[in-house]
Amino acid sequence: MKLIRHGQAGQEKPGVIIDNIKYDVSAYVNDYNEAFFTNHGMEQLSALIAKKKHKLTPIADDVRLGSPTRPSKIVCIGLNYTDHAIEVGAPIPSEPVIFIKSNTALNGPDDEIIIPKGSEKTDWECELAVVIGKKATYVDEADIADYIAGYVLHNDVSERAFMFERNGTWDKGKGCDTFAPMGPFIATPDEVDDINNLRVWLNLNGKPMQNGNTDDMIFKPHYLVSYITQFMTLLPGDIVSTGTPAGSGIGLKPPVFLKEGDVVELGIDGLGSQRQTVKAYTSM
Amino acid sequence: MKLIRHGQAGQEKPGVIIDNIKYDVSAYVNDYNEAFFTNHGMEQLSALIAKKKHKLTPIADDVRLGSPTRPSKIVCIGLNYTDHAIEVGAPIPSEPVIFIKSNTALNGPDDEIIIPKGSEKTDWECELAVVIGKKATYVDEADIADYIAGYVLHNDVSERAFMFERNGTWDKGKGCDTFAPMGPFIATPDEVDDINNLRVWLNLNGKPMQNGNTDDMIFKPHYLVSYITQFMTLLPGDIVSTGTPAGSGIGLKPPVFLKEGDVVELGIDGLGSQRQTVKAYTSM
Repeated sequence: MKLIRHGQAGQEKPGVIIDNIKYDVSAYVNDYNEAFFTNHGMEQLSALIAKKKHKLTPIADDVRLGSPTRPSKIVCIGLNYTDHAIEVGAPIPSEPVIFIKSNTALNGPDDEIIIPKGSEKTDWECELAVVIGKKATYVDEADIADYIAGYVLHNDVSERAFMFERNGTWDKGKGCDTFAPMGPFIATPDEVDDINNLRVWLNLNGKPMQNGNTDDMIFKPHYLVSYITQFMTLLPGDIVSTGTPAGSGIGLKPPVFLKEGDVVELGIDGLGSQRQTVKAYTSM
Repeated sequence: MKLIRHGQAGQEKPGVIIDNIKYDVSAYVNDYNEAFFTNHGMEQLSALIAKKKHKLTPIADDVRLGSPTRPSKIVCIGLNYTDHAIEVGAPIPSEPVIFIKSNTALNGPDDEIIIPKGSEKTDWECELAVVIGKKATYVDEADIADYIAGYVLHNDVSERAFMFERNGTWDKGKGCDTFAPMGPFIATPDEVDDINNLRVWLNLNGKPMQNGNTDDMIFKPHYLVSYITQFMTLLPGDIVSTGTPAGSGIGLKPPVFLKEGDVVELGIDGLGSQRQTVKAYTSM
């Protein structure tokens, strides 16, 4: 299945994509949130589609999409591709680097990225993210597949000066409003060929910047989810974002950062693509 | 006003404390969450108490209390007292250190602290926390009082090895389950004499460990809330925890960390007190 949330920001309704057509399911599902995943919403949605596929209401193809899940938290992994660790001048991690991204950063996949006040180093990071399907505390890697609802595309937008030059943890430069474009859809695991072999790409103004593969991750998605559950409980609907390959702006010589009017396009095999235009807060 | 949430974990109902007696208000209020604060719940609750004070249902004084707010996020400040920065061997911050604590760490004020699997350095931190009352983005310090619903006592429990020795940001050692005992109540600003002059204390097994004063903060609460809104939006009900004075376990020579059977008591003038017994996950 492919799950979407469609409509105006803050008023999104649940939907699905079947054979490239978007359908509304808000008559049957309240929202894709913790309660949905906890109360076997995925199984019920699957049964609904099997039974009522031809009675669902199609929606306009160009409808605005929001984040397809409403996570209680977004846990991210840093420096999880060797080439990205090298480009930011960091050592190769001996175990996963965890940080938390404010969930107020969540945005639709094609919404504008807003450069925050005082920012000169807003950067991009195309990432594979995992959507948690079941409450997870101290879960072994061998059992983790049962806890995964699906996968989603995420642009882990990052302000490098806020992260590295303003004192404190990375969280300061990761959670700005609009810094977590998520979607277009949650793909259930059966929709994705092999999560450990997916192309991860990002273009800036049409020019290729990132062109990696999840095969190059230092720590693989199943391991990462298991690892995080050793430190905190993951709730249904939560996001685990697995890090980005080389080609972010800070890694270029000289570095390149986002400016008003830029267009960012990104995608991962099987998870669709996003397109954001960049706007400066000060111009709003 | 003093706001509480009472009842079994996960099923707490809203209540208030009036003249040291606890009352249930669940007939009038759904919960103390984002919707409550957004929709003028505080004003309505105040009017309710004025009108129906004598008709409210008292509840048992020894009822279990949960966290008095359900924040979408908990944003914490590190190293905000000079003596604590010195005891952990960190430089005095030139601007506030921000990190995010997983909200799955939330706990009632008198619930057990669980030492996580593999932990040998679980530590305590008595803190003044601010409860946000209104959505806040780029708010000037001079205007911040309008955005504060009240104050609450917080034990920012911290695993020092997870923070400092396991690679990555502090978030890894801050968000373990039970690591955010919050409460007993939210005190509205009128209930607190002067937030910049409150005693902050913590005893371990009856022995004084922390004995500070909010007067010693490097950055004051109003400034901190304003500062965070420059980097991320704070939502109604969110928590901003303002850092801890000297006397955490890592600062002692030799360091002292929590072990099964320990009793932690802590308090701040006007914000009540907490009492936690410590349990090892491995003994559960």
